[in-house]
Amino acid sequence: MTDDETSNSPSPSRRSLLAVGGAGLALGAAAAGGAVALARSDDGSDMQPAGEAGGAVPFHGAHQAGIATAVQDRLHFAAFDVKTTDREEFVQLLKDWTKAAARMTEGRTVGEGAYGGLVEAPPDDTGEALGLQPSRLTLTIGFGPSLFDKHGKALGIADKRPDALVDLPKFPGENLEKTRSGGDLCVQACADDPQVAVHAIRNLARIGMGKVAIRWSQLGFGKTSSTTPDAQTPRNLMGFKDGTRNIAGTEKDRLAKHVWVDASDADWMEGGSYLVARRIRMNVETWDRTSLQEQEDVFGRDKGEGAPVGKAKERDEPFLKAMKPDAHVRLAHPDTNHGATLLRRGYSFTDGTDGLGRLDAGLFFLAYQKDVRKGFIPVQRSLATDALNEYIQHVGSAVFAVPPGVRDGSDWWGRGLFEQTEA
Amino acid sequence: MTDDETSNSPSPSRRSLLAVGGAGLALGAAAAGGAVALARSDDGSDMQPAGEAGGAVPFHGAHQAGIATAVQDRLHFAAFDVKTTDREEFVQLLKDWTKAAARMTEGRTVGEGAYGGLVEAPPDDTGEALGLQPSRLTLTIGFGPSLFDKHGKALGIADKRPDALVDLPKFPGENLEKTRSGGDLCVQACADDPQVAVHAIRNLARIGMGKVAIRWSQLGFGKTSSTTPDAQTPRNLMGFKDGTRNIAGTEKDRLAKHVWVDASDADWMEGGSYLVARRIRMNVETWDRTSLQEQEDVFGRDKGEGAPVGKAKERDEPFLKAMKPDAHVRLAHPDTNHGATLLRRGYSFTDGTDGLGRLDAGLFFLAYQKDVRKGFIPVQRSLATDALNEYIQHVGSAVFAVPPGVRDGSDWWGRGLFEQTEA
Repeated sequence: MTDDETSNSPSPSRRSLLAVGGAGLALGAAAAGGAVALARSDDGSDMQPAGEAGGAVPFHGAHQAGIATAVQDRLHFAAFDVKTTDREEFVQLLKDWTKAAARMTEGRTVGEGAYGGLVEAPPDDTGEALGLQPSRLTLTIGFGPSLFDKHGKALGIADKRPDALVDLPKFPGENLEKTRSGGDLCVQACADDPQVAVHAIRNLARIGMGKVAIRWSQLGFGKTSSTTPDAQTPRNLMGFKDGTRNIAGTEKDRLAKHVWVDASDADWMEGGSYLVARRIRMNVETWDRTSLQEQEDVFGRDKGEGAPVGKAKERDEPFLKAMKPDAHVRLAHPDTNHGATLLRRGYSFTDGTDGLGRLDAGLFFLAYQKDVRKGFIPVQRSLATDALNEYIQHVGSAVFAVPPGVRDGSDWWGRGLFEQTEA
Repeated sequence: MTDDETSNSPSPSRRSLLAVGGAGLALGAAAAGGAVALARSDDGSDMQPAGEAGGAVPFHGAHQAGIATAVQDRLHFAAFDVKTTDREEFVQLLKDWTKAAARMTEGRTVGEGAYGGLVEAPPDDTGEALGLQPSRLTLTIGFGPSLFDKHGKALGIADKRPDALVDLPKFPGENLEKTRSGGDLCVQACADDPQVAVHAIRNLARIGMGKVAIRWSQLGFGKTSSTTPDAQTPRNLMGFKDGTRNIAGTEKDRLAKHVWVDASDADWMEGGSYLVARRIRMNVETWDRTSLQEQEDVFGRDKGEGAPVGKAKERDEPFLKAMKPDAHVRLAHPDTNHGATLLRRGYSFTDGTDGLGRLDAGLFFLAYQKDVRKGFIPVQRSLATDALNEYIQHVGSAVFAVPPGVRDGSDWWGRGLFEQTEA
């Protein structure tokens, strides 16, 4: 069974186990019943019906899935350090990762053998996702600035760093921890079942053993943004809706304008995007002692409905001048930032306590954009006077060039970058 | 609206917000449609249909919910230190917590006022669960040994520590971190939606501010045990099924024999249970390099089906002598431990990385039992020679006396303990 034969197959549950290799897969898929074939749309976008919680999101397309894709419920995000200095080995890893990623997003085990292989060898798949649905898993890779600077010579890509892949400047008030920042590579795993997302990152790390190592990782338990306009806007851990006017996966014009890289950027990035990841700690204990009035003033929305100040409904167009000058919505709004607009797909996190009896909780902010210099950077500068800053602190930061999608079974993550370069 | 009027009400989504106080709740509930009234069963047990993912689990009953309850998908567990030395204040906190817990498990906001109250005051509810379903939230309280020893005099319960609430002995190989161990109190929040579980712990911590402080907390993203015999046995992060013969919530005889405390214990504990919590780190990177044969030998099961050595099906009765002498299933089996049987409801965790490029991942083991001295302690001693020990390490530990259920709206968590004692 070739990749081509299976790339558009329906989504079976992870039952390769029951088959010897892949031979029984067609039967398994036919029997799965609840899952339906999801055709790729013309433009390579991968919007799924929001209710299709167990199904598969197509891996192949013009853009990587996991950006415009309807935001899944859970996240496991990992940043990797590159350990190998061998270009060929690194390219082979990208190929192996791509193949494994395609299989896992289809709900299959990593290797063809699964547990039909040699008992003397470690299993090809760690097994904890056996029997689980594909759960709309998406895996999205990104390349950090250090991949080009620190490893560029060894990997033959030293002159390929795109101009738009800038190092983020220092922002006022941030307190970045090195152990939660940077990374030569990242993989964003989103799925409706956290075990499926954790399984995917863990297996990519396993495949990369000796060549890459996880630098940091972050679990997100609840999405805080939606890219599905008719879905309920989720709430962040401050109890507010804060992604009302997010770019929807169906808004092709806004995606083209604000998210997808075009021909003006590096060749290998066309159809890609830039990702900024920020770990934003919330001082929830302080916030919880703040009056409702203050909370609503800080955001510029009412807490219950989510309506902008002076308006009745969440989706009413905000009248920015009615808000306090330091209100979050006012300062973050495109009208305040020369139209700068980010596609947000952040997640809430709670990672135990901080040693002072306070929850280590907050927002793992993920934003995609065509150009960080016209996206996150001006918006974050504008937020320097944000009233919210009293209650939050940025403690982790990373930026990545997210290459375009993998076209088909013969393509692989980052091929454009490496095939235009020489060893 | 009194507690009595609402304690058996159907499960609305968290829409108290839309009503002024509770006045619109009946309408809201009637309109909720998908949710149905869940009658409490005769014996106070709280088994729910496994498919009722959005519904409410009754809070009141002979036993606390969250023990025999069909295991929910997600966990937020918190251990608290007591800060107050005022018995009256502590009792009031238990009453306030009970009231808030009952409301939250019904899918309601913490305070009657919700956001209809004074804008000059902090909101009664932090708000991040607004619009979410009850999600089968259960909240289960426990009292640690230090509550009686360290705070017993101030709280008037110094002589009330049950004999069965022993300090756990030191076990070979464990490497316990103080910052992940112990606690005067615990609250186990289980729900099918993690945001609902996190919201509950966060609001209890908020209500307790100044009187208690979170000592440590643990998020669990995937259940590793089931108490529903017809459900698929979940897999742990080693990829194995390890809860096949768990006590089911429907097995009244086994619950009575192994889980529920009877009249032979302290008066105030009858109908309660004892909880052992262990944070078990898995060395997944080492495990993943281990051959399938070794993995299956270690557990005493095959990885795919989960069948015991020499058997065909997961639920076939294991023939222990067919397993290696140090196989996990063999050493943990009741037949090896004079019948000792634990009700397990542990969860997988992944808390980023450990600074050495390894995932900080494993099993947050939660086990309920009638008597720790006849339950966890002998089983864990038996596991001293467990082949699994090469791949795991216990890094956190706590034990709690879990009092019986809250009978009705006038009852409260721990009343039996405090009403039999004097200030």
